[in-house]
Amino acid sequence: MSRAPTLLFMSALDDPAEWVPALQRAWPELKVRVWPDAGHPDDVDFALVWKPEPGALRTFRNLRLIINLGAGIDAIAADETLPEGIPIVRLADEGQAEMMSGYVLLAVLRYHRNLHRFEEAKRAHRWTYIHPKPHAHTRVGLMGLGYLGAHAAQSLAAQGFRVSGWSRNPKTLPGIETFAGPDQRQAFLAQTDILVALLPATPDTHRLIDREALYALPRGASFVNVGRGSTVDEPALLAALRDGQIAEATLDVFEREPLPPEHPFWDMPQVTITPHLASVAVPETAARQIVANCRRALSGEAPDYAVDRRRGY
Amino acid sequence: MSRAPTLLFMSALDDPAEWVPALQRAWPELKVRVWPDAGHPDDVDFALVWKPEPGALRTFRNLRLIINLGAGIDAIAADETLPEGIPIVRLADEGQAEMMSGYVLLAVLRYHRNLHRFEEAKRAHRWTYIHPKPHAHTRVGLMGLGYLGAHAAQSLAAQGFRVSGWSRNPKTLPGIETFAGPDQRQAFLAQTDILVALLPATPDTHRLIDREALYALPRGASFVNVGRGSTVDEPALLAALRDGQIAEATLDVFEREPLPPEHPFWDMPQVTITPHLASVAVPETAARQIVANCRRALSGEAPDYAVDRRRGY
Repeated sequence: MSRAPTLLFMSALDDPAEWVPALQRAWPELKVRVWPDAGHPDDVDFALVWKPEPGALRTFRNLRLIINLGAGIDAIAADETLPEGIPIVRLADEGQAEMMSGYVLLAVLRYHRNLHRFEEAKRAHRWTYIHPKPHAHTRVGLMGLGYLGAHAAQSLAAQGFRVSGWSRNPKTLPGIETFAGPDQRQAFLAQTDILVALLPATPDTHRLIDREALYALPRGASFVNVGRGSTVDEPALLAALRDGQIAEATLDVFEREPLPPEHPFWDMPQVTITPHLASVAVPETAARQIVANCRRALSGEAPDYAVDRRRGY
Repeated sequence: MSRAPTLLFMSALDDPAEWVPALQRAWPELKVRVWPDAGHPDDVDFALVWKPEPGALRTFRNLRLIINLGAGIDAIAADETLPEGIPIVRLADEGQAEMMSGYVLLAVLRYHRNLHRFEEAKRAHRWTYIHPKPHAHTRVGLMGLGYLGAHAAQSLAAQGFRVSGWSRNPKTLPGIETFAGPDQRQAFLAQTDILVALLPATPDTHRLIDREALYALPRGASFVNVGRGSTVDEPALLAALRDGQIAEATLDVFEREPLPPEHPFWDMPQVTITPHLASVAVPETAARQIVANCRRALSGEAPDYAVDRRRGY
């Protein structure tokens, strides 16, 4: 190839002012173009995309690799306009995993330490002592043990929480009790005080966390969703929160995003809402992995972290 | 000694129903008595105490060891009625350190992740996206690098935060940039986004965090105090919070505890208040260390973690 290798950056959420220099530090010869300023379409070898505009990638006839700027590929998997036959990879970014684990730790520690009770006491100018519990007295269950879920489970275990995990297929993680498949779901949930969902959006996970699952938890359990909104039966969650079966929830993802202003979650004091930002890819750490995959694609090797659009992850 | 070794438990905050079995698991021959049911005073060999009633320990003529049920010994150091010549030890409890690190992580992650901005947005039913920062972009400075401070610094560094520490005497900690003494205080503070104070209460630390220290931080810094209230000049902190020099504070300790109901901190939305419970000794982990020290005292050896009442730690 006589021309310089060229990557097209296409994301409405991520800042090209951070990504372009990070990619060029990782591969000084790489030309990076930022959508919609794509240059000549035939020059584009790689596309680094987050929720690309439908049909936008069709013009690039020489595309060799599509890189999903994140872990969940549901947006790409649903996009019927993507060119066929071009490998798609996702990120498995240490920086993104650290950020996700930080969000999960924050949510778990808030519940473990009863922060809302001190916030209430503060409004009444009340000094209300509650003897604190060791981390080992709180049982956290991770549902979904992919790259991000396994990282979060291990961060929680490193802080001394009693951690278990559930996944579709059996997995082994040091220091974590693991459960797998539909048969072990009930046993997993029955011993979980704080349920953290980190499931991908696939046909198999659609509303997997339903009424039955929520009521398999001990009464008064807490719930954290940092995976995808479609994995939860939202009306069932709403009912379980109103009923006290679920005492409190931290939700970063929803069936409809942005969450509509009339949604009842907004007015529930026991619900914490963040606008789908538990973790994002981090340019410093992800650029090396992206560049390595581009080089593999150029030399005809199979890329790392290839995804299966039909399977959904 | 023909009679069974006897320990007297004396704390209004800690639960004897947890401590007595933990101590007896660690030393089955040990007799444990719970104040005020001390039995014959001459039988008491060891006193495990948190803020003992003034003069209460004077009756125990055969006392060989006083164990402070916690890390900070200021309450004991100030107690003029303690019998002289009996060694005093404090705890250096892994369970307590883990709990303290968890509290500090919670406070730091809340500020790093701008949780209050999402809480505000929620009240308005607003989906307000703020692109999240990697942990490495937030600089956390620990003031006080004793057993608990060093543990917290290392927990934060393990989560990827950029951590530095300041102590009176030079210390070295892997992965932490350290500063020491009054000459390096300004340089330490100038590069700290979130200041975490974990200082003991001693004559040297009295109001060490004063107006000058608070204004040496970058404007809009956050402050967390989990050490002792006396180490902060509270009127100066109040002024710095009102002025915006300190954007927000999480305070577990105060000059007067309980914090008086008329104190202005209660009504400041940028202040989080918890009632002096960032960490406590944990029976499961501390009992072994307590028992080991009792055995050393019986056999005439010097105990571990002896404290110097005059120095204050």
